Amino acid sequence: MTPRVLLPWTDLELPAGLSAAWYGGGEPPAEGLDGIEFYVIPYDSGAEPVKLMRRLPALRVVQSLSAGVETVLPLLPEGVRLANGRGLHDLSVAEHTLALVHASQRDLPRWFAQQASGTWEREHTRSLADSRVLLVGYGSIGRAIERQLLAAEAVVTRVASRARPAEGVHGVAELPGLLPSADIVVLVLPDTPDTRGLVGAAELAALPDGALVVNVGRGTAIDTGALLAETSAGRLRAALDVVDPEPLPPGHPLWKVPGVILTPHIAGGSASFHPRARKLVTGQLRRFADGRPLLNLVD
Amino acid sequence: MTPRVLLPWTDLELPAGLSAAWYGGGEPPAEGLDGIEFYVIPYDSGAEPVKLMRRLPALRVVQSLSAGVETVLPLLPEGVRLANGRGLHDLSVAEHTLALVHASQRDLPRWFAQQASGTWEREHTRSLADSRVLLVGYGSIGRAIERQLLAAEAVVTRVASRARPAEGVHGVAELPGLLPSADIVVLVLPDTPDTRGLVGAAELAALPDGALVVNVGRGTAIDTGALLAETSAGRLRAALDVVDPEPLPPGHPLWKVPGVILTPHIAGGSASFHPRARKLVTGQLRRFADGRPLLNLVD
Repeated sequence: MTPRVLLPWTDLELPAGLSAAWYGGGEPPAEGLDGIEFYVIPYDSGAEPVKLMRRLPALRVVQSLSAGVETVLPLLPEGVRLANGRGLHDLSVAEHTLALVHASQRDLPRWFAQQASGTWEREHTRSLADSRVLLVGYGSIGRAIERQLLAAEAVVTRVASRARPAEGVHGVAELPGLLPSADIVVLVLPDTPDTRGLVGAAELAALPDGALVVNVGRGTAIDTGALLAETSAGRLRAALDVVDPEPLPPGHPLWKVPGVILTPHIAGGSASFHPRARKLVTGQLRRFADGRPLLNLVD
Repeated sequence: MTPRVLLPWTDLELPAGLSAAWYGGGEPPAEGLDGIEFYVIPYDSGAEPVKLMRRLPALRVVQSLSAGVETVLPLLPEGVRLANGRGLHDLSVAEHTLALVHASQRDLPRWFAQQASGTWEREHTRSLADSRVLLVGYGSIGRAIERQLLAAEAVVTRVASRARPAEGVHGVAELPGLLPSADIVVLVLPDTPDTRGLVGAAELAALPDGALVVNVGRGTAIDTGALLAETSAGRLRAALDVVDPEPLPPGHPLWKVPGVILTPHIAGGSASFHPRARKLVTGQLRRFADGRPLLNLVD
């Protein structure tokens, strides 16, 4: 029997020697799981697809399509290798970040409200050009965001967990000195013990009046109560794709603060992800079929 | 008496040998106009500031802060030189173009509506990355837009009034062959007899289903009725900073079409304009004081 792979697509071209079954999330298939050796977890489909790993007796490789595999690792069966989706979402997250920044700087909520009431009233807005952006998190997503910010002639200061002077990257320990001259702070941080609560009342207080706080990493990086206080007072603005708690509960006061834009954790999930995910998996299956080392393996 | 200049700012540093008065738009000053030799027309302030040119008997130079001077030229007094504001708005228009494109591709109106109702529902969106963008109008603004589109990994095809093969620029005559493979069309055209009605029913019909039409040049480039038909049918989407007629009258059906985003001709008017305008005028005043040739002179 040829090795079998379980894929979230029906039309992927397979290397010779492999056969495929389809699973796109939701209720797992009732049979045919015995021979599955390579399983691509459907993206962004909740807990069921992750649990399915444990019902595949022949499993050798799990491919996640997320960069973060914190929900997969605890359930990974002994001896099964795990590869992540590092890089697949970089462009999607980067362009959503730009969408949030532009929407805030150019007052899109105001114009949309005017459109709804059929009103033509003009006023000058802020710019992204010339704005001083503190980019906190400088991995592959941060670099993709930076390229787009620089093309808009923003002035970018790089910050990461640890200073990397050779790359011009400051460490988060330097934040107190950097925040007072930031017009925009963009957070692109994973959820780790070090990043939780990184931006609290003191950090927000250090920002100049009218500064914009953007979060496209994980909601836990910001103290929600402190951000709520500063934005409700009208002193700071915010554009958040991730929040804490998440999902934001109905009736939470953050929903209604003027100057705050919220999107429901969708930065990574746009069309540009799909061709990149298919390309990664196609390559991984060739490597698997040929017995070559896989990419993006998680230790 | 030293030559006097009339400026829309009170705090510009003047070269030695000049003295300044202030006029920021609205009712012109009742006196002190006799000695004005250099007049900077306040930006985006309507017809009064333009008419003031004709009440300045000592006038030698008029500096407009707009790239287009079609409203100034007919009233320019004999023998007075006119300089325009070419380039001052490039970045502002370019970033507003990106704001409109991102807002459409990433469904911002939908998320803002969900925010208003406190609803957390997620769905994948289109991307700008990988999108095939037809950029119609390839002057300095077009180039600024292109840099930002390329940083987002869109695929750009350049079009201008006349083909410039050495620059990889197609002519508008080639539009019929280019439109069918465009996901996004961005129009950045001045209002001229050649551009009026350039995009009509036939051109819109040539676009693929779901394509996005963006206009940040002049509203007259598009046949509004034809665009209304295609967008009302849900076949095309649009994001328009300029429309025809302009202002769009209350009750016009275009205000309410789903998939259409409207902003009130504000692309050029953002914070990034001001430092660039001040820098241009500072340089022009130095040239004027020194008797050197001015920049941006209109023939």
